[in-house]
Amino acid sequence: MSVLVVGSVALDSVETPFGKAEEALGGSGTFFSASASHFTPVRLVGVVGDDYPIDKLQVLAEHGVDLSGVERTAGESFRWRGRYRHDLNTAETLETRLGVFSHFRPKIPQQFQKTPYVFLANIDPRLQLDVLRQVERPRLVACDTMNFWIESRRSDLLKLLPHVNILLLNDAEARQLTECANLVKAARWIMERGPGHVVIKKGEHGAFMFTRDSIFFAPAYPLEDVFDPTGAGDAFAGGFIGYLAKTGKLDDAHLRRAVVYGSTMGSFAVERFSIERLLEISVPDIASRLGAFGRLVAFEADLAESK
Amino acid sequence: MSVLVVGSVALDSVETPFGKAEEALGGSGTFFSASASHFTPVRLVGVVGDDYPIDKLQVLAEHGVDLSGVERTAGESFRWRGRYRHDLNTAETLETRLGVFSHFRPKIPQQFQKTPYVFLANIDPRLQLDVLRQVERPRLVACDTMNFWIESRRSDLLKLLPHVNILLLNDAEARQLTECANLVKAARWIMERGPGHVVIKKGEHGAFMFTRDSIFFAPAYPLEDVFDPTGAGDAFAGGFIGYLAKTGKLDDAHLRRAVVYGSTMGSFAVERFSIERLLEISVPDIASRLGAFGRLVAFEADLAESK
Repeated sequence: MSVLVVGSVALDSVETPFGKAEEALGGSGTFFSASASHFTPVRLVGVVGDDYPIDKLQVLAEHGVDLSGVERTAGESFRWRGRYRHDLNTAETLETRLGVFSHFRPKIPQQFQKTPYVFLANIDPRLQLDVLRQVERPRLVACDTMNFWIESRRSDLLKLLPHVNILLLNDAEARQLTECANLVKAARWIMERGPGHVVIKKGEHGAFMFTRDSIFFAPAYPLEDVFDPTGAGDAFAGGFIGYLAKTGKLDDAHLRRAVVYGSTMGSFAVERFSIERLLEISVPDIASRLGAFGRLVAFEADLAESK
Repeated sequence: MSVLVVGSVALDSVETPFGKAEEALGGSGTFFSASASHFTPVRLVGVVGDDYPIDKLQVLAEHGVDLSGVERTAGESFRWRGRYRHDLNTAETLETRLGVFSHFRPKIPQQFQKTPYVFLANIDPRLQLDVLRQVERPRLVACDTMNFWIESRRSDLLKLLPHVNILLLNDAEARQLTECANLVKAARWIMERGPGHVVIKKGEHGAFMFTRDSIFFAPAYPLEDVFDPTGAGDAFAGGFIGYLAKTGKLDDAHLRRAVVYGSTMGSFAVERFSIERLLEISVPDIASRLGAFGRLVAFEADLAESK
């Protein structure tokens, strides 16, 4: 089944200890699409300015992403410039120019309105709610957010939650939203307000998925060379939702496996700048890393000698 | 098989958002012993001052810890006073009084010198080396250290490494020792200098075990109420080494399971002050939490619908 994603389509300029990229494809919608399109057809809704190198986006179209919902409008494209220091853990934002993204009002094309899986990438929760008004009873709605919206649009975010099946956010955001330092309590707080599942991403420390009656954890893959962490969270969401949409199943076994696909795609995203690595990998590469995740956490619950 | 541990026996005064403890049993040797003694007989070598409430230590003796190597000497016992703020992640040390511990010269009693499993808790690496001179070809030597020794006794620590089979340390210490930000590289750096296995503890973010040809990861158990993080790392080491000593096996399957026992014991340690919870739990409690760890990370590597 197809996935609809509504998010940013940006130009990223990134500096890491290993090199720099100038005006590379970026944005939450872009990373999500590059990742999810390994699993299922993706429909991207976003906005770019008339200065955007549209030809560069064609790599996404060739990868199964329907770009007919990417609006092109007069003005400057969304640009982000950031830097990572030696430990690669936190991005230092040097410049954010929202450009046409600041007036973004998502319009879901008619041919996208019945998409069964919807991912609301990190945008204003009022716009996320507006997207839900434009789609027809999706099977699954997943949603991301960020500290900026938690601070400035808290009541809108709380209005959105009852309409969301799965909330994905990072640990700092979960703590900020819920005012609970403990993640188990934070997840319960969120589930009491709507979502049946909460995925809390902890970057290099892995990700938890909480449901009403179980907790699942997948580590981040211990890579020897992390090149550029930008977009890892959106690549995670792409693997997670993309796999669920592909299988059409939402039972615990598939949700757990979806989290591991999320970690898998996040681990590929950080191996190169922009979406380079996400577009380069093949189905066997993904299967191979999923297997490596299995070996990473495998232990025998019952060994005769331990009795 | 028995385990010999050489470490501190202290009195801890701890304040957390949930309460305070005054002059409670503490120290690396104490936490390790309380944990490991669930698996195998433990022999503790340490020193206390003549003000130490020796009767309180009897709970360890009742738990299978041989205290005949705990020397009592004139002077003040090692006292630590610390505080944890709301997030419980970092201890703020308010006071450290080393007392008799500052002149500690471990003497391994003759009846302990053939102990097959040796854990060198966090003490001066010169003393750790001296302990190894006093024991007769142990089957396994595991070792902990800390930032203070990495800074002040670096060359002694490097001299110790070739004699150590398993180095346990936390992520910050691994980075400091090796000057590698990446933990995979840090572990390799350490393994090139002696130890065949490196366990890197990441506190609430779990623990990695690196060997020359595999990586294993166990999360920390997602507890809803962490009461006092003091001693979690030593309780981890106790579960890890205690289980290995119990089984006498050192193959990959047992080492992986040992890491999970380490995480299990660490997760119990933080549920109460001091060693209270470690002494209270039973074999079924430990087995039950080990099972919960299994469910926490379990996913099916092959689901028909994903093909």
